[in-house]
Amino acid sequence: MSSIADGARRLVLGRPFRSDRLGHTLLPKRIALPVFASDALSSVAYAPDEIFLTLAIAGVSSYVLSPWIGVAVVLVMSVVIASYRQNVHAYPSGGGDYEVATTNLGRRAGLVVASSLLVDYVLTVAVSISSGAQYAASALPFLAGHETSLAVVLVLLLMAINLRGVRESGTAFAVPTYVFMASVLGMCAWGFVRAATGDLPQVESAQLELVAEPGYEEGLTGVVGGFLVLRAFSSGCAALTGVEAISNGVPAFRKPKSRNAATTLALLGTTAVAMLMGVIALANLTGLRFAELPATQLLRDGVPVGPGYQQDPVIGQLARAVFDHAPFAFFVVTAATGLILVLAANTAFNGFPVLGSILARDGWLPRQLHTRGDRLAFSNGIILLAAAAVVLVVAFDAQVTRLIQLYIVGVFVSFTLSQLGMVKHWNRHLRTEADRAARARMHRSRAINAVGLGLTGVVLVIVLLTKFTRGAWIAILAMVVLFVLMRAIHLHYDRVAAELELAEGSDVARVLPSRVHALVLVSKLHLPTLRALAYAKASRPSVLEAVTVAVDPGETRALQRAWDERGLKVRLKALDSPYREITRPVVDHVRALKRENPRDLVVVYVPEYVVGHWWEQLLHNQSALRLKSRLHFIRGVVVASVPWQLASSEGADVDDRVAAPGDVRRGAPGPTPPLGPR
Amino acid sequence: MSSIADGARRLVLGRPFRSDRLGHTLLPKRIALPVFASDALSSVAYAPDEIFLTLAIAGVSSYVLSPWIGVAVVLVMSVVIASYRQNVHAYPSGGGDYEVATTNLGRRAGLVVASSLLVDYVLTVAVSISSGAQYAASALPFLAGHETSLAVVLVLLLMAINLRGVRESGTAFAVPTYVFMASVLGMCAWGFVRAATGDLPQVESAQLELVAEPGYEEGLTGVVGGFLVLRAFSSGCAALTGVEAISNGVPAFRKPKSRNAATTLALLGTTAVAMLMGVIALANLTGLRFAELPATQLLRDGVPVGPGYQQDPVIGQLARAVFDHAPFAFFVVTAATGLILVLAANTAFNGFPVLGSILARDGWLPRQLHTRGDRLAFSNGIILLAAAAVVLVVAFDAQVTRLIQLYIVGVFVSFTLSQLGMVKHWNRHLRTEADRAARARMHRSRAINAVGLGLTGVVLVIVLLTKFTRGAWIAILAMVVLFVLMRAIHLHYDRVAAELELAEGSDVARVLPSRVHALVLVSKLHLPTLRALAYAKASRPSVLEAVTVAVDPGETRALQRAWDERGLKVRLKALDSPYREITRPVVDHVRALKRENPRDLVVVYVPEYVVGHWWEQLLHNQSALRLKSRLHFIRGVVVASVPWQLASSEGADVDDRVAAPGDVRRGAPGPTPPLGPR
Repeated sequence: MSSIADGARRLVLGRPFRSDRLGHTLLPKRIALPVFASDALSSVAYAPDEIFLTLAIAGVSSYVLSPWIGVAVVLVMSVVIASYRQNVHAYPSGGGDYEVATTNLGRRAGLVVASSLLVDYVLTVAVSISSGAQYAASALPFLAGHETSLAVVLVLLLMAINLRGVRESGTAFAVPTYVFMASVLGMCAWGFVRAATGDLPQVESAQLELVAEPGYEEGLTGVVGGFLVLRAFSSGCAALTGVEAISNGVPAFRKPKSRNAATTLALLGTTAVAMLMGVIALANLTGLRFAELPATQLLRDGVPVGPGYQQDPVIGQLARAVFDHAPFAFFVVTAATGLILVLAANTAFNGFPVLGSILARDGWLPRQLHTRGDRLAFSNGIILLAAAAVVLVVAFDAQVTRLIQLYIVGVFVSFTLSQLGMVKHWNRHLRTEADRAARARMHRSRAINAVGLGLTGVVLVIVLLTKFTRGAWIAILAMVVLFVLMRAIHLHYDRVAAELELAEGSDVARVLPSRVHALVLVSKLHLPTLRALAYAKASRPSVLEAVTVAVDPGETRALQRAWDERGLKVRLKALDSPYREITRPVVDHVRALKRENPRDLVVVYVPEYVVGHWWEQLLHNQSALRLKSRLHFIRGVVVASVPWQLASSEGADVDDRVAAPGDVRRGAPGPTPPLGPR
Repeated sequence: MSSIADGARRLVLGRPFRSDRLGHTLLPKRIALPVFASDALSSVAYAPDEIFLTLAIAGVSSYVLSPWIGVAVVLVMSVVIASYRQNVHAYPSGGGDYEVATTNLGRRAGLVVASSLLVDYVLTVAVSISSGAQYAASALPFLAGHETSLAVVLVLLLMAINLRGVRESGTAFAVPTYVFMASVLGMCAWGFVRAATGDLPQVESAQLELVAEPGYEEGLTGVVGGFLVLRAFSSGCAALTGVEAISNGVPAFRKPKSRNAATTLALLGTTAVAMLMGVIALANLTGLRFAELPATQLLRDGVPVGPGYQQDPVIGQLARAVFDHAPFAFFVVTAATGLILVLAANTAFNGFPVLGSILARDGWLPRQLHTRGDRLAFSNGIILLAAAAVVLVVAFDAQVTRLIQLYIVGVFVSFTLSQLGMVKHWNRHLRTEADRAARARMHRSRAINAVGLGLTGVVLVIVLLTKFTRGAWIAILAMVVLFVLMRAIHLHYDRVAAELELAEGSDVARVLPSRVHALVLVSKLHLPTLRALAYAKASRPSVLEAVTVAVDPGETRALQRAWDERGLKVRLKALDSPYREITRPVVDHVRALKRENPRDLVVVYVPEYVVGHWWEQLLHNQSALRLKSRLHFIRGVVVASVPWQLASSEGADVDDRVAAPGDVRRGAPGPTPPLGPR
């Protein structure tokens, strides 16, 4: 069965790639950019919105600051990208910030980075999908008001797709990412052309009056005003998430890996900066009004527009104005934006299990997450990620503005620690390096990373100050919980390892048992029982005994009679069960055997059914399972399962290698090349 | 560890009772009545309400019919109880309606009865708890408006208590049941005394005007009016649920069992009838107004009272009026009513697993529900029951009036089929009985059961007619689904049994394997591995081989080196794993061994950790579990688990016999006598 299916599969997909053919699946830059960029670029879909609505708190006059906030974000972005180009050259193995922090700052710092990244993956999903739902509602009005449900459905859909193990392919990323880049940059360019010719229309919201929130009637003045500007800047820094993705993905690049990765980083930075500034400029040109509380802050003819007003996202409003005579172009922009947001969320579904597998390798997370070849190894991570994202989406009503308060704390924690680690890295290397040219390069890199450290540290403090009470504390609490949990897991593994270690000369475990006492469990006289009996005999034990539990006296007598009639040469012993239990009499019997002959090995043969469907599994073997787990507590007992394959189990034994999330971005081998037909 | 705990327990509770000492735990009538009566009596808390509000649809003038509807319910109750006194004598084994129907009408009829009873257990929980929540809200006004949440919490609480295995004790039932009986009957008596002396005040709702619902302005006239009367009668018949409980509980009675059970039935009937008629009479005396739609149907000074009006349950309103100078007595009545409703729901938590175990014994439900001694055997049933009840409570907003439309269909299906079965039972016995006195008794019993059959059949038709479209279809659909499901399970077990049967001369399963090839799985060189190796050696296989999977080349080399250094005489074979899987290389290797020597037995020794906590379990053995389940699909392979008990497993091996739900009412043995100190 399985081999026919295998054959058919190979006919369609070609033979699976093996580790030694790895080179064939590596990514050229033109594919690597979209694969790694969707997360970073997609923030253009919500970062300008957050800048505008935060400034709007102090009234429309503060919009004059929006380009300057954009410039500040661009500055941070440039520094971070320059810094990460150093990381990529120094740590080309794909371990990313976690590896940099662990190597240079110790395990504890590495674990802090890991906790923050895990939390930020969850937030990437929640924020991107919530924003995507807003775009969908702005393009398809019948979805308005159902953003939360839509977002939950989208998360579950992504989860299902990733559980099924659909393989990421470069093409799947390349097309929508390039369309998104082209359409947004194209929209900006066309808008500027129209503005230059005096033909650019205003956006719809330009007709509205924007009033400050209570307490901000004076505009951006004093400490309160400055704080608001910092908050707008913090929210704008969401544009930086996803930059670290490339440093995790170096192994997936074509050679020279580090150089190509660094170039891709620079390309990514340039594009992101261009898009962000373009959108901000265009919004100012078209008179956009975007409020935190549109119902009360926006007035039409002096009257608040009220809760019925649907405030479309910034890119949506701009596209509608710029392409006022080309509704199809408006649709393309909106659809591409929605799609890139979903791809960004999918990025987290790929990154989370990869990080989980690295953490499991190092003993911070359950071991079974480590083996990436097995399907079950990552499905728990995917489900966990989706569940956490759904909780966030529902708790925050899929409102990007509220979710973004939790976001990017984690990213900047890992940025800062990673840059600190890089500075120490260069310090360490400078201590031993003698070559002058190399030293000069290192000094230069250290300077870049030091600037990066200073700037990301400042941004981290700003983010914490402006957002802690507004939601960031939730993210920090989650990081602390994860940190403690992972430490506890590590401690447990350490303890177990110490307990199991082979002390010199301690040969407790090697003492050969003197005799083997075999016990066959009998519930009925049928084929599985006879097979278990035959297998027990084949191992030629010192004593062989068949045992049944007398739950029902009538049934037991009938079984004894059938047993005797059949002339089986093994004695069938019936264990008393006054309370109609099955497990305890057997366990007590085995304990008694061990008490009498402590050096004997007792092997309990348990006949089991093998069925093909999970629901059949519910109908069988339950008492066998319980019994086995209880017998495990007795020292010197081996439990031997003797399976009997029922007809329904035929063909159910299929467990094909499926694509693991993150394969493409880690350069892992797989059944299809990244540009393949699937 | 475990034996010390056992000792302490025995010191406190005395030695557990064994089957042969069963007589000691049987129930005298004064305890049996409350144990079995809570379900039947508790319906007095909501049945009169349903009668009044259904009549209220046609306006207050139709209240004159309420005593007559009460009389009709009393008539049905008397006939049903007379009929069940015959059942109790003829089927003293406690199988109840399911046994009567299966024995006399065949397996299909028995299954119909079983399906209806299972559905009605769920409804008993939903209706009783919803009604209890209404009483709580009427006594404690801050709960008003939160009835659904309160009901869900109560269901989950009952679930938790029953999962913990708290033992039903006779006292726990006796005190609240007798308090409930005394307080309701006492309230009626005191009310009649005050009425006779002209001192009885009106209830609060008496000041209100009750208007008919639209379409019923003419009062109870024509077909529509008659139909409404029948609906009121149907709802009143809720008072009959729980009568069949005693016929399931005959084995728990003191000898003479059947006589005592029959007497208890008569007592139960008399009490229930007295309470129902008393409440109806008192409601008429105090001018009660009780509407289906109080907000619009009740007018104060000609104006509808609106949605702010909180309509208290009938008993609550009566108690407030009768005890207008004794608020404490009002509180006792309300509290006792709430408590009896919770006890009634608890009854279902006891009855459901008992019925489940009987159905499992007969192969209609998964086998593992059969063994009642094991804790796990009933916890699934309890969770299922609670989950279904919560779904109903939430779906119907904990509104008794809407839930009661689904109720009692099941009860009357089983009443009717049971009575039909009894008539056939007597027919069969009359065919062979020669003794004249015995024949006379049988003729008399048959006549009673025939009347019961006729009347319950008529009521069933009335219930179906008046309630089908109002919700009863949901109950019937659930019954049909259960019926089909149980048939499918039975079919599956039949098929498996046929597949496993020992055909004459077919000794396939007895063929002794020619040689035993032992395989020890090695992940690390530690104590568990050495133990597995020692045990494998002890069974003296023909070939012994140690096997590891080379996921990480470095680790594998290190392992090989350590293996060689230790001088283990067994060769360690490393299996290639190009895709970093663990399961597949091992499975492929075993398959290859079986292909080479099909007659060999392959025994795979898997070292496993035994831990004390469930969360530790999550950190270990996951790949072992997966591997074992996959190896089970290969014929001629035995999987031998070699447990290594970690320190944390000490003392975790405690699995004391817990009380099973329904023990008391089935006369099962247990650690405490029903009047014991627990």
